[in-house]
Amino acid sequence: MEGTLTKPDLSGPREIANQNDAASPDTAIVRLKALVRADLTAVNDEIVERMASHVPMIPALAAHLVESGGKRLRPMLTLAAARACGYDGADHVRLAAAVEFIHTATLLHDDVVDESVLRRGSATANVIWGNQASVLVGDFLFSRAFELMVDVGDLKVLQVLSRASSVIAEGEVMQLAAQKDLSSTLETYLKVVESKTAALFAAAAQVGALVALRQDSGQAPEIEVGLRAYGRNLGVAYQLVDDALDYSGRQASLGKSVGDDFRESKMTLPVVLAFARAGDEEKAFWRRAIGEGRQTDSDFDEAVALMERHGVIAETFAYAKRYASRAKSDLEALPDGAYRQALLDIADFSVARAH
Amino acid sequence: MEGTLTKPDLSGPREIANQNDAASPDTAIVRLKALVRADLTAVNDEIVERMASHVPMIPALAAHLVESGGKRLRPMLTLAAARACGYDGADHVRLAAAVEFIHTATLLHDDVVDESVLRRGSATANVIWGNQASVLVGDFLFSRAFELMVDVGDLKVLQVLSRASSVIAEGEVMQLAAQKDLSSTLETYLKVVESKTAALFAAAAQVGALVALRQDSGQAPEIEVGLRAYGRNLGVAYQLVDDALDYSGRQASLGKSVGDDFRESKMTLPVVLAFARAGDEEKAFWRRAIGEGRQTDSDFDEAVALMERHGVIAETFAYAKRYASRAKSDLEALPDGAYRQALLDIADFSVARAH
Repeated sequence: MEGTLTKPDLSGPREIANQNDAASPDTAIVRLKALVRADLTAVNDEIVERMASHVPMIPALAAHLVESGGKRLRPMLTLAAARACGYDGADHVRLAAAVEFIHTATLLHDDVVDESVLRRGSATANVIWGNQASVLVGDFLFSRAFELMVDVGDLKVLQVLSRASSVIAEGEVMQLAAQKDLSSTLETYLKVVESKTAALFAAAAQVGALVALRQDSGQAPEIEVGLRAYGRNLGVAYQLVDDALDYSGRQASLGKSVGDDFRESKMTLPVVLAFARAGDEEKAFWRRAIGEGRQTDSDFDEAVALMERHGVIAETFAYAKRYASRAKSDLEALPDGAYRQALLDIADFSVARAH
Repeated sequence: MEGTLTKPDLSGPREIANQNDAASPDTAIVRLKALVRADLTAVNDEIVERMASHVPMIPALAAHLVESGGKRLRPMLTLAAARACGYDGADHVRLAAAVEFIHTATLLHDDVVDESVLRRGSATANVIWGNQASVLVGDFLFSRAFELMVDVGDLKVLQVLSRASSVIAEGEVMQLAAQKDLSSTLETYLKVVESKTAALFAAAAQVGALVALRQDSGQAPEIEVGLRAYGRNLGVAYQLVDDALDYSGRQASLGKSVGDDFRESKMTLPVVLAFARAGDEEKAFWRRAIGEGRQTDSDFDEAVALMERHGVIAETFAYAKRYASRAKSDLEALPDGAYRQALLDIADFSVARAH
C-alpha cells in the first residue's frame, strides 16, 4: 500500500488485493485515488476545459465547487468500473467528468433549495455569489454534462445518464414534499434516497461498464447489471451514513453543518425511526420541532438525546452496513484484481466514515 | 384563411401563400397554429405523458406552466421547419416537446432568478409553489427534455440542443452579471439576447430541418443552415420587441408586469440607448435608478418619458424589424409553400406584436 502511494505509476491495474486494509476508511479512498490517479488527472483537465466560458462568473463559481475538495467518489466509480472491465480507451474520462458535472449542478441547486451556508467546510456558492448565480451556473454545468456525453456518442450511455438526471430531480422534489411530514416511512425515505443519491452512483458505475462492453463485446452482460446494482446499494449506504452523521458527527470532520437536516425538518431515517419509537410526550416534541418546524436552540440536543435513547443512530448505521454488504456481493461477476478490490473497499469505507 | 380555420384538416402542407395577411400579427400565429394543428396536438400529448411522475408536485407545477397559454412558438418552429422540408415521420413531435421542455425549465428558473410574480397574466410557479420547487421541477423538465431527445436517437440533434442549452445558461449568467452595469453596450446586449433567447429559436428550427435531412438525404444542406439562421434572427427580433414592450406595452396585452426589467435594473437595449443619449442630469437619474437600483414609485414613468424624448423605443423596434427582415431572407432556400409562408409571416408577427 505504501508503495502504491509513493510510486504513482498506476496507469494499469495492479494486484494489491492482498493488501486490503478495510478497517481504515481513509485508506480505501486513498487507495482508489491512487489506483485511478492518471485517469483522475485527465478528468480534472476535462473538467477545467469544459468549465471554460467567456462569462467570467461561470468558471469562478464552478471552480469553487469543483475544486473545493470533493472526494470525487462518483467519477472514480466510473473510472474504476471501466478499468475493472479491462477498458483501455478514453471515453470513461469524459463520462466521469460528466458525472461530476451532474453531481456539482445538483449540489449548487441543493444548496439554494436548502439555504445551506456551509459545504465541505467552505462557504456555499449561494452565500458567495447569490442564489441567482447558483441556479444559472448549475444549469450551465448540467448542460455541459450533456455536451460531454454527446461527444462520447453512445446512445445507451446517454439514456442511462439522462434517466438518472430526471430520477435525481424527482427524488429532490419528493424530499421537498416529505419535509415536515411525520407520516413518512422507511419506505418513502428509501425511495427518496434511491432517487436523489443512489441513481447517480448506479449510473456512474454502469456507464463505466458500458464503455468497456462497447470496446469488448465479449464481456459478460451481468457485469454491467452487477456494477449498476453495486452503485445503487453503495449510494444508499452512503446516504444513510450521511443522514446518521447529521445527528452524530462532529462538524470539523463532516465539513458541513451538523444539524442541517434537523433545522430543515427533513424526514431522514433517524427522525423516521425516532418518531416511530416515541411515546406521547416525545411525539409532541417531534410534531412541534419537525412537523411544525418551530425549534428552539436546545431542540437539536434534545433530538440527539431522544435518538440515543432509542438507538436509532446505531440502527441507521446498521441499515447502511446491510446495503454496503449487498454492494459487495454485487461485484461477484467482476474479474478479480486491484480495481475490484478497491471497489469492495469503498463499500466498507462508505459505512466506516468518521463518526 | 377562414376556410383554414374552420376546416382543420391540415396534416399536409396547403397552399395558402396568397392569403398572406401579415398586417395582422394575430393572424400569423393563428395561421401557423392551424397549419401544424395535428402535430401540435401530438406535441401536447407527448408533453402530458412526459410530465408524468409518481411525485404529485411535478405534474401539478409543470402543467401550470405548460398549460398556462404559452404561444408554443418554439415547438411550432420545429414542427413547421420539419414539414417545410417535406418531413413525414414523427420525430419532429418529440423534438418539439423537448424544445418546449427546455423553454419551460428556463422560464421556471428565470422566474426564481428574477423574483417574478406574474407571467402570461398568471401568478408564477415560484409564487404558488415556492422557489425550491421551481428550481427542482425545472431540473426535472430539463432532464426529461434530454430523455426525449435521446429517444429520437440522433447524435447531431443531441449536439445542437445540448449546445443550445449551455449557451442559454451562459446568456442568463451574462445578463445577471450585466445587471446595473451602465457601461453595457449594444454589442454586449446583443450577445446576451443571442444566447439567452435566440439560441433556442435557432436550435428549434435547425433540428426540424435535421430530422427531415435524415429522412431524405437529398435535401440541400443550405436549408438547415438557413433555418438555423432564421431561428436566430427571429429570436433576436422577438427579444428586442419584448424588451421594448417592457417600457411601452400595456400590462393586459403583455400578460406580464410592465416595468419588470426596469425594477430589476436589467440592461436591455432601451436603457443602453437612453443612457448613451442622456445629458448629465439624465445620466445621474440612470445611475441612481439602474446603476444603484435605488428607485422611487415615479421613476418608471420618468424612465419612459426619457426614452420617448430620445426615441429609443422606436429605435429598438427598428432594430427588431431589421432582424425580422434578415430572418425572412434566411428562408430563400426553403421550398415554397404554406409552411414557408407561415414562417415568413411569423417573422412579421414578431415585430408587429401588441404595442
